[in-house]
Amino acid sequence: MAKAGDLVEIVTKDNVYHGILMPKPEIFKSNSVVLKLDSGYNIGIDKKKIKKIKLIKKAKKTKQKKKKIKLNKKLPTVSILSTGGTISSKVDYATGGTYASLTAEDFVELEPKILEFANIRAKKILQIMSEDVGYADWITMAKEIKKELDKKEVAGVVLTHGTDTLHYTASMLSFMFPKLSKPVVLVGAQRSTDRGSSDTFMNLISSVIAATQKIGEVMVCMHATSNDDFCYLHRATKVRKMHTSRRDAFRSINQFPIAKVFTNGMVEILTDYKKPDEKTELNTKIDKKVALVYVYPGINEKILDYYVKQKYHGVVLMGTGLGHVPKKIVQKIKFMTRKNIVVCITSQCLYGRTHGFVYSNLRRLERAGAIFCEDMLPEVAYVKLMHVLGKTKKLEKVKELMQENLKGEINKTISVKMFMN
Amino acid sequence: MAKAGDLVEIVTKDNVYHGILMPKPEIFKSNSVVLKLDSGYNIGIDKKKIKKIKLIKKAKKTKQKKKKIKLNKKLPTVSILSTGGTISSKVDYATGGTYASLTAEDFVELEPKILEFANIRAKKILQIMSEDVGYADWITMAKEIKKELDKKEVAGVVLTHGTDTLHYTASMLSFMFPKLSKPVVLVGAQRSTDRGSSDTFMNLISSVIAATQKIGEVMVCMHATSNDDFCYLHRATKVRKMHTSRRDAFRSINQFPIAKVFTNGMVEILTDYKKPDEKTELNTKIDKKVALVYVYPGINEKILDYYVKQKYHGVVLMGTGLGHVPKKIVQKIKFMTRKNIVVCITSQCLYGRTHGFVYSNLRRLERAGAIFCEDMLPEVAYVKLMHVLGKTKKLEKVKELMQENLKGEINKTISVKMFMN
Repeated sequence: MAKAGDLVEIVTKDNVYHGILMPKPEIFKSNSVVLKLDSGYNIGIDKKKIKKIKLIKKAKKTKQKKKKIKLNKKLPTVSILSTGGTISSKVDYATGGTYASLTAEDFVELEPKILEFANIRAKKILQIMSEDVGYADWITMAKEIKKELDKKEVAGVVLTHGTDTLHYTASMLSFMFPKLSKPVVLVGAQRSTDRGSSDTFMNLISSVIAATQKIGEVMVCMHATSNDDFCYLHRATKVRKMHTSRRDAFRSINQFPIAKVFTNGMVEILTDYKKPDEKTELNTKIDKKVALVYVYPGINEKILDYYVKQKYHGVVLMGTGLGHVPKKIVQKIKFMTRKNIVVCITSQCLYGRTHGFVYSNLRRLERAGAIFCEDMLPEVAYVKLMHVLGKTKKLEKVKELMQENLKGEINKTISVKMFMN
Repeated sequence: MAKAGDLVEIVTKDNVYHGILMPKPEIFKSNSVVLKLDSGYNIGIDKKKIKKIKLIKKAKKTKQKKKKIKLNKKLPTVSILSTGGTISSKVDYATGGTYASLTAEDFVELEPKILEFANIRAKKILQIMSEDVGYADWITMAKEIKKELDKKEVAGVVLTHGTDTLHYTASMLSFMFPKLSKPVVLVGAQRSTDRGSSDTFMNLISSVIAATQKIGEVMVCMHATSNDDFCYLHRATKVRKMHTSRRDAFRSINQFPIAKVFTNGMVEILTDYKKPDEKTELNTKIDKKVALVYVYPGINEKILDYYVKQKYHGVVLMGTGLGHVPKKIVQKIKFMTRKNIVVCITSQCLYGRTHGFVYSNLRRLERAGAIFCEDMLPEVAYVKLMHVLGKTKKLEKVKELMQENLKGEINKTISVKMFMN
């Protein structure tokens, strides 16, 4: 009988499928068989519809012989912390289980070239798809990163993460580290290692190179173009996933990337960055009672009552244009600020700055107590507000902190070249 | 005493302001004076703080002598319908009132060159800032457009609109006109006519040129670059405002613009477009019980209960990446679809396609009954779902229509060049 990892042909009433039989993931409690097609995509086929499963080729038993890695005293040490996502997914057909790249040896096996730039330590701290990342995970990540940064021999930390919410995590970590003595580099992959076009290898090696630099920031390291020419190192508070599947999906918005990173170790600095602080400081206190709400024509303003009723402390609105919302929402904001709920305004345009003074409707919004978040990305304003409300609940102080540039999230001088780039 | 329109100097305790005294807008019931600074921005100054208002130069009385426009029988006729927004705002300092460009003569006075390309008819159908546009306005616009298109002498319609929600209106109008015998061109301005860098003139003339073309689509005509070189003519269902203030804020997403329009009348076609239909058909039936919801780490899934309780018929989710949502939201979607509420999945990445089959979490979503909206923009999926639910409430039919390319909203062959362009 065919087993996971075998190349098979599955015949149903309507089709013939050709591919590798996949181990049954936990999620499939239903009666289906999962096949990885030659295209690299997986499909599920209802067992009832299967007429025949023909074994074409048995899977090769892969022997897990791992070389012990020698310490190179001339090189810095980088800690790789893995949390799950595409970059650490690797299906072991022989054993039939899904396991993630976890040990230093696993990473070296994946991309031996990383040893040219650093000694590698590695630890699996979470196993989670990024769409399921939550508050507790952010705190776990921050604490584990702190532990590594505090080790004298560690030059920097690489955190592997699913790409979907990688930019949320990156900016949250930025705010959680008011001071940072070493670089923290988040990296992900848009395509898994079993696909020819996988970006895992180049992203991984680039992130290790980035983690050896003297930069005191949380950053995101991902493919810069649709070719394999170099990676961008983005400021965590200025980056966003802008494409569902492209390898160069991550783009700096209203800001230049900090640097280009080449796999030969070259790092080309593109803009100002923060030098490392003397010591690393961690503050994981966040207020979870914060929401992010998209504003659109026809929006029911009563949806905001839900947050009032649930005793939320803050709401970030994604307004239109310069930060506009319909008149009926302005009324609701007045009501909310009177109840001491912080209302922040960002723009769904993503690019550009919100303003509280250009049009009379905007001035009205400001008088209603709304806080305009400059050129901050909505996602960044959302995590920042959680962080700020973790520090203080005083409206005036919250406003002051939200409009203060804490971690590069506000750019006072946006260049014309920072648009769609 | 200084009057509205006069150049003045206002001295307060801390500052001296130099600018044109503005007529007091309705909104300022407070005791403030509005001054238009040389930068083009307006500021409000508290009357209590004013020490002195010095008159520098009296406003010139502008005489409203309007030339009667002669009909040029060699040229086509374009109807300009105005609805408000920056493009039709023009402060008349002499009379002190805010009035909008409404008559054909007003538009010709604004940009006399339009008479080289078309005879102009004009009508003010609404006076509204675009952040306040709602269902009723969409229906008003569609009906007024239909009236103009039905006139034999009219070659096409230009609709002037505030830019904030212009793309929502444009795609709604696309769906409301299943058949279109003439072009409908939406146009706005990012900067008002009293600013040197105003895009009003070039956008207006380009939209008139566009409205004389043989194209059976609703389109958006706006500045293509940060220079005054040409305008883009975008497909209504593929365009989005991507910058809060730039003149070239409108970008085609997952699609090329239909054409470049030059102010000398040249139109350079860039991609396929729809030829005019024999007759125009209008269907303004929409279902208002539809919501658009942003998905993010930490989202409270109970927010969806609000829409269940309020008996909504459809919700469009802006998921992460390929269309992911947290597990707890998947459970909620199951519950909603069982209650016959349509749940559509789009991506907050904006660029790229959503998928229901790549990752197991996505397959779970699909089994929960969610409809993946291909490469549709979230805003477009939102107005499309209103339109589709206006036609049918049968889930299978809704799914079929949502995944069918009705008005160019789905692009099956996204080119690599359609990213960040």
